[in-house]
Amino acid sequence: MGNAFDAVDVIRAKRDHAELSDAEIDWVLDAYTRGDVAEEQMSALAMAVLLNGMSRREVSRWTAAMIASGERMDFSSLSRPTADKHSTGGVGDKITLPLAPLVAACGVAVPQLSGRGLGHTGGTLDKLESVAGWRADLTGEALLAQLEDVGAVICAAGASLAPADKKLYALRDVTGTVESLPLIASSIMSKKIAEGTGALVLDVKVGSGAFMKDVSAAGELARTMVDLGTDAGVTTVALITDMSTPLGLTVGNALEVAESVEVLAGGGPADVVELTLALAREMLAAVGRDDVDPADALHDGRAMDSWRAMISAQGGDPDAPLPTARETHQVLAPADGVLIRLDALAVGTSSWRLGAGRARKEDPVQAGAGIELHAKPGAVVRGGEPLMTLHTDTPERFERAVAALEGAFDVAPEGSRPDVGPLVIDRVAAT
Amino acid sequence: MGNAFDAVDVIRAKRDHAELSDAEIDWVLDAYTRGDVAEEQMSALAMAVLLNGMSRREVSRWTAAMIASGERMDFSSLSRPTADKHSTGGVGDKITLPLAPLVAACGVAVPQLSGRGLGHTGGTLDKLESVAGWRADLTGEALLAQLEDVGAVICAAGASLAPADKKLYALRDVTGTVESLPLIASSIMSKKIAEGTGALVLDVKVGSGAFMKDVSAAGELARTMVDLGTDAGVTTVALITDMSTPLGLTVGNALEVAESVEVLAGGGPADVVELTLALAREMLAAVGRDDVDPADALHDGRAMDSWRAMISAQGGDPDAPLPTARETHQVLAPADGVLIRLDALAVGTSSWRLGAGRARKEDPVQAGAGIELHAKPGAVVRGGEPLMTLHTDTPERFERAVAALEGAFDVAPEGSRPDVGPLVIDRVAAT
Repeated sequence: MGNAFDAVDVIRAKRDHAELSDAEIDWVLDAYTRGDVAEEQMSALAMAVLLNGMSRREVSRWTAAMIASGERMDFSSLSRPTADKHSTGGVGDKITLPLAPLVAACGVAVPQLSGRGLGHTGGTLDKLESVAGWRADLTGEALLAQLEDVGAVICAAGASLAPADKKLYALRDVTGTVESLPLIASSIMSKKIAEGTGALVLDVKVGSGAFMKDVSAAGELARTMVDLGTDAGVTTVALITDMSTPLGLTVGNALEVAESVEVLAGGGPADVVELTLALAREMLAAVGRDDVDPADALHDGRAMDSWRAMISAQGGDPDAPLPTARETHQVLAPADGVLIRLDALAVGTSSWRLGAGRARKEDPVQAGAGIELHAKPGAVVRGGEPLMTLHTDTPERFERAVAALEGAFDVAPEGSRPDVGPLVIDRVAAT
Repeated sequence: MGNAFDAVDVIRAKRDHAELSDAEIDWVLDAYTRGDVAEEQMSALAMAVLLNGMSRREVSRWTAAMIASGERMDFSSLSRPTADKHSTGGVGDKITLPLAPLVAACGVAVPQLSGRGLGHTGGTLDKLESVAGWRADLTGEALLAQLEDVGAVICAAGASLAPADKKLYALRDVTGTVESLPLIASSIMSKKIAEGTGALVLDVKVGSGAFMKDVSAAGELARTMVDLGTDAGVTTVALITDMSTPLGLTVGNALEVAESVEVLAGGGPADVVELTLALAREMLAAVGRDDVDPADALHDGRAMDSWRAMISAQGGDPDAPLPTARETHQVLAPADGVLIRLDALAVGTSSWRLGAGRARKEDPVQAGAGIELHAKPGAVVRGGEPLMTLHTDTPERFERAVAALEGAFDVAPEGSRPDVGPLVIDRVAAT
């Protein structure tokens, strides 16, 4: 496309509230990927986009241009339909782990390309790497073969997908331009669309432990992403779900794998089961399989078989004991009463400080670190009994982990009602 | 100041419409100068400033921090007061050339640190470099000695003044963040205040040939700069002057020097004389010398003596013939009538294309290139007689120079009134 445009002209257009043309968007993202538009130029453009917004057409084209910057996977040769799930990230959000094998057990291929965690929300790959032998990296051929044979794959996204997004995401992180709805939506959707899925279910989280703190912003993000998926020919639907309190009773890597296995065995915490089934039903409906009830596959062992096959196919041993942390510390209930609030962000931050998450991309994580919750909002607690157990290999971390829990929960007199709403708050589908 | 702040936090604050604290502004400009705040971070901040603005306190502190990034000159040891002039740039704007020696002849020291031209407005140093032997670069000691002995100095600004501004200006140029009133005002004023003058008169130009196209924007810029100077203890006043048509009858380097010498000899075009005297009176008044009439110094030869001394002190030969271009081309009046409009931007662009200006910093300029005007708006012209003469050493440039003049002037039937207002439109002083 050569020097069809000038970076300064494109920046000035967006700065002055003009809509960028398709050709301008294509050019600027291609030139940025090639290094012809400099980092400082893209950061000025990103700030102008953050402050002045983008139209639906602009975001859609921006997303398409990021997809066009790299490869796009193609699963059309598979004998079954494909459906994928993406969560905007939460505390204790291990849903991908039971969900992918469950949906695969219902006859749908689930190509779940995931990332590692940064900050207070854990990464799916970090969690699975606590399973002995399990490998996150697959070749394209191995991925396709496993999708055909097992149906479920959870693996690392290759660097060849949407390289413009990778570059832009790293830039936004250091230039205060992360919190732009069009840039968030196009970043997520460019990767997901490039991954080649036929259907996509989005879990847009809202609450203290989520990126989106209020329902209207979460709704706007969900609507934007559903539109982007629809524009790109991917059947897309979003659930807006509560992330004011952690999901399930565990936060951490191996701790969350253990809880996921409980769910796959037909047990597990009610909220994790509820959300797993809600998302599974959406994925099945999106590929025309709403005749199948995924609850059956949880109870008859098919989901567990699918999990074992998925773990084994990637070198993991589903029977190996999961790692545990060397040290534990209990946080006690301050009084008798009802736990009416347990803050997701505080628990996520505490778990992160225990070693379950990383501050920098290159940091390692502790497989056994994290938090076990002994009560969730609504539960009756007794003063002096454990409310949660903190786990880490490095006990010097307890002090800052406990400090993160300051003000994180409230115990009220018995009979009080907890401050929690429904888990699935809303559903956003193509218009 | 170390890691007192985080660049992303400062960017996010301005992005979210917060006022930056003094400490944040000091830190971010110091860290940027040292390279600890990256170019892409400063460009995101500059875009946020452009779109969200800065308060008077913020711009004042921003300016002070840019001054603090380098050296500040000190002329307090001089036996006479100092006054400086800054123009925001126009076509045919040679005013500094007669003005500096004129004001020096009235007993005031004029430390005029100038730049080279870029784009359609010429640079004062480029013009003076057409005088044989004249050198723009002076040491600090030579500058001080010349100010004491001659009174007037026009020379290049040293790299040690406001280095943060130099770095930021180059960045703004490539990131679409030039057109920010607080950034323009702080850039100009940080350099001018660092130059150590006691009084400053601003010539804020408005019209097609100026950076500011309308009077209200020019007034806002003037007000901001006058406030900044006042806050920094510099007596500052601004004149808002018309730049819809070129100043004088010449545009180019040697051509403008020749016209300036005419003014210093007591002649020259009326508009150049008017503006030179208006600015000289403001400079004299700003240092309490409003008892002196600069018109006297133009007519009795003192200003010319001062010019000759200033040129000689910097190695120039005031008696050497000025360079002339090898080729000329005449643009003829299309009909009998009155020239009612002559567009400054078109004439500036045409002169630039003839070789008088440069497109890139490293380009040379032609000393003899430029345009002689044979009529200004209001003049009666005859069809087929020359309206202007284009000069260049490189005749292949005539075609594009003539093209730039397309639609640049209007000749109306005799008796028509020209479309021109007063030269000095407004005056802005400290409140």
